[in-house]
Amino acid sequence: MINVALVGAGRIGRVHLESLTTKCANDVNLHTICDGVAPDLEELAADHKAKAVRDLEDVLKNPEIDALVICTPTDTHFNVIQRSLSAGKHVFCEKPISQSLRETLDVAELAEKHKKVFLVGYNRRFDLNYRKAQEIVTSGKIGQLQVLHATNYDYPGAPLEYLMDCGGIFMDQVLHDLDLLRFYTQSEPEVVSAMGNANAFPELRTIGDADVVNCIIQFKSGVIGSVDCSRFATYGYDQRIEALGTKGGVWSENKTTDNIRYSTSGGTLSDNPMPGFLTRYMDSYANEIVSFVNSIVNNTPSEMDALEAIYSLKMAAACKLSLKEKRMVEISEIKP
Amino acid sequence: MINVALVGAGRIGRVHLESLTTKCANDVNLHTICDGVAPDLEELAADHKAKAVRDLEDVLKNPEIDALVICTPTDTHFNVIQRSLSAGKHVFCEKPISQSLRETLDVAELAEKHKKVFLVGYNRRFDLNYRKAQEIVTSGKIGQLQVLHATNYDYPGAPLEYLMDCGGIFMDQVLHDLDLLRFYTQSEPEVVSAMGNANAFPELRTIGDADVVNCIIQFKSGVIGSVDCSRFATYGYDQRIEALGTKGGVWSENKTTDNIRYSTSGGTLSDNPMPGFLTRYMDSYANEIVSFVNSIVNNTPSEMDALEAIYSLKMAAACKLSLKEKRMVEISEIKP
Amino acid sequence: MINVALVGAGRIGRVHLESLTTKCANDVNLHTICDGVAPDLEELAADHKAKAVRDLEDVLKNPEIDALVICTPTDTHFNVIQRSLSAGKHVFCEKPISQSLRETLDVAELAEKHKKVFLVGYNRRFDLNYRKAQEIVTSGKIGQLQVLHATNYDYPGAPLEYLMDCGGIFMDQVLHDLDLLRFYTQSEPEVVSAMGNANAFPELRTIGDADVVNCIIQFKSGVIGSVDCSRFATYGYDQRIEALGTKGGVWSENKTTDNIRYSTSGGTLSDNPMPGFLTRYMDSYANEIVSFVNSIVNNTPSEMDALEAIYSLKMAAACKLSLKEKRMVEISEIKP
Amino acid sequence: MINVALVGAGRIGRVHLESLTTKCANDVNLHTICDGVAPDLEELAADHKAKAVRDLEDVLKNPEIDALVICTPTDTHFNVIQRSLSAGKHVFCEKPISQSLRETLDVAELAEKHKKVFLVGYNRRFDLNYRKAQEIVTSGKIGQLQVLHATNYDYPGAPLEYLMDCGGIFMDQVLHDLDLLRFYTQSEPEVVSAMGNANAFPELRTIGDADVVNCIIQFKSGVIGSVDCSRFATYGYDQRIEALGTKGGVWSENKTTDNIRYSTSGGTLSDNPMPGFLTRYMDSYANEIVSFVNSIVNNTPSEMDALEAIYSLKMAAACKLSLKEKRMVEISEIKP
Repeated sequence: MINVALVGAGRIGRVHLESLTTKCANDVNLHTICDGVAPDLEELAADHKAKAVRDLEDVLKNPEIDALVICTPTDTHFNVIQRSLSAGKHVFCEKPISQSLRETLDVAELAEKHKKVFLVGYNRRFDLNYRKAQEIVTSGKIGQLQVLHATNYDYPGAPLEYLMDCGGIFMDQVLHDLDLLRFYTQSEPEVVSAMGNANAFPELRTIGDADVVNCIIQFKSGVIGSVDCSRFATYGYDQRIEALGTKGGVWSENKTTDNIRYSTSGGTLSDNPMPGFLTRYMDSYANEIVSFVNSIVNNTPSEMDALEAIYSLKMAAACKLSLKEKRMVEISEIKP
Repeated sequence: MINVALVGAGRIGRVHLESLTTKCANDVNLHTICDGVAPDLEELAADHKAKAVRDLEDVLKNPEIDALVICTPTDTHFNVIQRSLSAGKHVFCEKPISQSLRETLDVAELAEKHKKVFLVGYNRRFDLNYRKAQEIVTSGKIGQLQVLHATNYDYPGAPLEYLMDCGGIFMDQVLHDLDLLRFYTQSEPEVVSAMGNANAFPELRTIGDADVVNCIIQFKSGVIGSVDCSRFATYGYDQRIEALGTKGGVWSENKTTDNIRYSTSGGTLSDNPMPGFLTRYMDSYANEIVSFVNSIVNNTPSEMDALEAIYSLKMAAACKLSLKEKRMVEISEIKP
Repeated sequence: MINVALVGAGRIGRVHLESLTTKCANDVNLHTICDGVAPDLEELAADHKAKAVRDLEDVLKNPEIDALVICTPTDTHFNVIQRSLSAGKHVFCEKPISQSLRETLDVAELAEKHKKVFLVGYNRRFDLNYRKAQEIVTSGKIGQLQVLHATNYDYPGAPLEYLMDCGGIFMDQVLHDLDLLRFYTQSEPEVVSAMGNANAFPELRTIGDADVVNCIIQFKSGVIGSVDCSRFATYGYDQRIEALGTKGGVWSENKTTDNIRYSTSGGTLSDNPMPGFLTRYMDSYANEIVSFVNSIVNNTPSEMDALEAIYSLKMAAACKLSLKEKRMVEISEIKP
Repeated sequence: MINVALVGAGRIGRVHLESLTTKCANDVNLHTICDGVAPDLEELAADHKAKAVRDLEDVLKNPEIDALVICTPTDTHFNVIQRSLSAGKHVFCEKPISQSLRETLDVAELAEKHKKVFLVGYNRRFDLNYRKAQEIVTSGKIGQLQVLHATNYDYPGAPLEYLMDCGGIFMDQVLHDLDLLRFYTQSEPEVVSAMGNANAFPELRTIGDADVVNCIIQFKSGVIGSVDCSRFATYGYDQRIEALGTKGGVWSENKTTDNIRYSTSGGTLSDNPMPGFLTRYMDSYANEIVSFVNSIVNNTPSEMDALEAIYSLKMAAACKLSLKEKRMVEISEIKP
């Protein structure tokens, strides 16, 4: 049994709390819940027979605690990760580590130095559909991989103020798909090219950002990957990937809420893609926590460490530059 | 807040325990867990801050307890329901109440007499797919209903000893589909005709039962309903219904675990129907408990009471007789 | 090269004319077109460099003519077939031969006696979808066949006067599905049970007919077959069959005109089944003529002879009786 | 009635011959078949009651002939079109007019000068699926168009010697998709970016070509279009397009030969995309000829004239340059 502290008891924190106490109940003792502001912290902790703690330091200096599950706001991730690894804790953190390549590399070095499990929650890697498709691709069932195409249309969409402050569409949204391209190709990205427009949110133009983008990435292995991304679709959360290999193709399609068809003289109606990330990716949030716990318990490598996160981060930075400077960008241009 | 006792802490009991303590947490206080044999009863109850009780009488005579969720073995249902309603408790019980029409009518009378909520868990009525399709049908969106056809192929299948002792395929398995026909038609069944064979389990012939059956039911409203049922399919748990109306049609299709397609020169491969009732119907088990709790809290009628259960019970008895005597059977022949 | 006469130049006659002169052009010389009433007969024949003939006798006594493709009105089929076989011609005729069991047996005997190819156009047997599904079933790919279920909902539907004069829904429409059950089972039907209603066309009740029916057929091999049939669907011509075997299942689904999906906030819309038998079954009309010609040229047995047509005819007669007398009917009750 | 000469009686010529004499029979008199080399020219012409002619000049100087359907080898297109328009004939020609922008403009000018109908057979514009999807897009049903993505994977694939001599993947294959992007956007392309690899046919690298490419095209209207293209897929001819708009999305999916699903314990198998362009696009070949004839008969503008062909030609040239020079290319760089 490992003692785990949940750090950050917001929406996604409570999702992970559920996984820790049900799916991981055989391996995990929920030791502490730490949150600086949650008004119901005491009650929440009591319900789960855990300690309620306001100050992260009290978690870090407690030698009973083996691992932290970090669900604090995005801009605190790097600081909390750094302190936690330095305190000798295993760390799970929601994505992203940081938008800084330097800081991401620092995390990789810290985890290596302290020989601790570090797993960052690029949750699509832990989603049943994306993972099964990846296994088909990497197992060679479709031969040598040639083409990848991911589609990521958000729904119901984030407010403009979030969009203006999130680091841009590549860092915030396309990052997931770029990580999938790495996950499927297992190869090094070499060149990117990106185009985009801000039709729905013209204000984004003022910061050089877009609400609809397409990017191509050339990988060392020869694979051509591309992503279509939009800040909002009106018919549901559209999340797909497809792959062409020398012996076949794979398609990971959308999940729907129901499986009803209904036909009248006007046509045949069926359900739209699921209405948002929490319903669509609920399984992946549990799976990533299980993976983290398994790595600690079985002493196996993290399935998604900081070095692996470098690839998508570089691609996102290169795409951002490509969109801004209207030119192809080599990954080698992106420096820490 | 209502005080609920869970009676029977086996597999399905623990499914309902989860629903009571999560989905219904705002309305329900889990007061007691009662089980005569579960070795971990004390621990389970402690985990949920509930009392552990071995004897049902201790539940029935406790005035703090408002409602019972009964998950005891099938052959005890009638006895436990009867005693619970007589003790003035609201009662949820897994299907069936009893294979006896007389006992089912007794339960209806007891619930009426004591003015208590009684809900029997015909879980398909609470499954998202079956319910959405039913709403399309009963809302008139496909016009006047004309034809219903349900398919129910079990997977991975029950062992022969269970099949020999369960009351036969109509009482045990087709009962669900017959209940759906009633749910969709809202009409009285009038005549049935059934045929069947025992190919996989020839031993069933010795008790006049079959492992593959088809039955037709004529309803008073004019609808022709039918069911294809098999004790096992090799490709997954095949659970469908379709309806034809004067203005359209509805199809409730199978759920699959993933949404992957994979094409090679040999064809395009996709996922099979889900691998069994616990994965396929997990949502419905939670929904039926929520419905029960809502009826108590809001003082609304049960969504599935004993009188409603009479319809499918009569149809199942008539089908059983039709198969045995190789003739059409009028529902009016079936007497308590 | 064989010399063929087309007898009957109506709508379906012209469909077969096209097949004879294109698909069969290497084997067939279209020698004569015979039609008693078509106003453009001379022109039609000239366009195809064929003789125009008004009187069937001129075809029958012409020794140059090897084979007849008969597309005359249904009630003339038996007479024309009988005379043609007696004149020593190979005969293709649209379904049905006759609604009389006696006459159908006579045709079987005549074909046998004169050693001529006789093929009756039960066109679903020659449709790509139905045939591929049948091959999967009969090849054993799904193990031993257990259950068959066919759906046949007409569109846009026939006028009441046709319905009142066609011999009833079983003889006219369900006959196709009953023939499919025979085609797939390769077994003898033993007992049938049928129910139905006349909701859309209540006048049909006056002649003991229905516009919506369901029937079950028990086969000697143990297979339970059933058919859902309606005189009209509002969303297209719904034509399906499905099979369950001990190792798997097969579904032959509807064809659509296009392959477009279109999603908005209201849901995802796709195309309905094709709008009628001529578009849906166009391929089968060509295939049945090709099969007929191949049997003559290669001296191989007819793929659909009069003896094979007996099975569905008996089932249809038994279903008609079952609907009328509200009882199960043994096939052995149906006598010539 | 218009008098038409078919010029070039090869494979595609005979497809158009069929359309001219069946679908267009009410408007068209097939006057002449002209082919310099076909050994069966006399017989083919006789079968269709047309004149057989070896020399194109005999067609051009015959004042009875109104229109030419040109199906000669690709490298002769410009020459034959030019002479035909100059001779005052209406002209249909298979795509492409020429890979030269100058020659394509010349054709536009000639058609304008002689006031003749000129239609070039970009057949996807006349395919039922692609056209219906385009109508949904241009009608505004999905709001303002934002994203287009086309997929074009060839099957069974062309031989290397063809690939080495066809002008490259953009001019030869992607041209169709680039034309679809223009057809759907009705807008001006502005910038392109292309990447590619030659994995299956490394010899293509010697001529700066690739067998797998992806390109992005930015349109003036703000739409971001992209194409995934491969010289071969192993599972069928994969031909799709999808569109995202501000109010919805549209998907034009592959056509399959059959509509069978087949499930066993190993999964559910269904049919692959159709096995090549002749089966997949057969309808479009007829439709483009009908459109050409209708424009002549009704004096309406050509649905696909030389000016419209300029757009895709410029995009293809820009993509070719982008692949070669590894940089984004402005359409304005492409000069006649």
